[in-house]
Amino acid sequence: MQIDDVATALFRERGYAATSVREIARALDLRGASLYAHVASKEDVLWSIVDRTAARFEDAADAAARAEGSAAGRLTGLVRGHVGVIMEDPGAAVVFVHEWRQLNGRRRADVLARRDRYEARVRDLIRAGVDSGEFEPGDPVLTATFILSALNGIATWYRPDGRSSPEMIADTYTNLALRAARVASLEEAR
Amino acid sequence: MQIDDVATALFRERGYAATSVREIARALDLRGASLYAHVASKEDVLWSIVDRTAARFEDAADAAARAEGSAAGRLTGLVRGHVGVIMEDPGAAVVFVHEWRQLNGRRRADVLARRDRYEARVRDLIRAGVDSGEFEPGDPVLTATFILSALNGIATWYRPDGRSSPEMIADTYTNLALRAARVASLEEAR
Repeated sequence: MQIDDVATALFRERGYAATSVREIARALDLRGASLYAHVASKEDVLWSIVDRTAARFEDAADAAARAEGSAAGRLTGLVRGHVGVIMEDPGAAVVFVHEWRQLNGRRRADVLARRDRYEARVRDLIRAGVDSGEFEPGDPVLTATFILSALNGIATWYRPDGRSSPEMIADTYTNLALRAARVASLEEAR
Repeated sequence: MQIDDVATALFRERGYAATSVREIARALDLRGASLYAHVASKEDVLWSIVDRTAARFEDAADAAARAEGSAAGRLTGLVRGHVGVIMEDPGAAVVFVHEWRQLNGRRRADVLARRDRYEARVRDLIRAGVDSGEFEPGDPVLTATFILSALNGIATWYRPDGRSSPEMIADTYTNLALRAARVASLEEAR
């Protein structure tokens, strides 16, 4: 995991394309290990970060889905879980969101399919809430995208020593997301 | 502007740090012009894109601020203007949002100050809505950040030939943002 942590910091700061395997190895050497031989390919490292982060989002969503209750309640759980995964490792979340497209072939296809499935879970919860009368009819695709973009933004600005505690951010963002989901009727926008 | 357009496409695809002046010049040559001499510094090109995009967001917000009416009405105008600027040139918006931190010295400080002022406009409209009773009390900083992250996300997924028309996206996103702004009380999240 040390390789992943060092690479995450470099990818986040400089971008994946501008970071070389040599730089990752050098950053590891500075920490006292000579791990150049272990960093086979830059894409392997990116894949390790992206795959692990995707799995953490999926695990959190699975946990939320196991809860009983209303669509609003399950969406609350999913949003809270998503925010928690980001705040636990904002660097990995930034690299995941900004750099997954740099993967090639089957790895890129794998992440794309998993992203689609994840977004579909959010859309399906919104649709379920519309069907149950909890949310007003709207466009579940745009609503889910709106909410996930807002949540993913946390990865770019969150600092553990910032003005808002993790609990405050999670509470407020969950509330904002749920309020947005309750509605998307075009009539109200006009 | 041709240099900016070519550079925007390269910066968006590969990232600023991984794009060389030589590549920008080569991409321009391929279009039949020999403009290598005109691309003095990569940071000059990034600055041109970022400064122009920031000015477009500011102009749109100025226009919204000149409108009379309620805080909700003025926030609606600002959100609509913000979405319009993004959809008019999503590539420039992506480069602005993701790459402005690559600027140095006074340029970086300039963009940082302008971003702060812009975010303060959103926060102030939310506060005004709370004061007037249009919005419920909450955390204007987190609410403004939530909304702007959601709106900026459009730059990463919007395609002119996508499933939703620009008008539909603008209507729906404005509605979602306004609904989120109406509330941020922690009590309701629980």
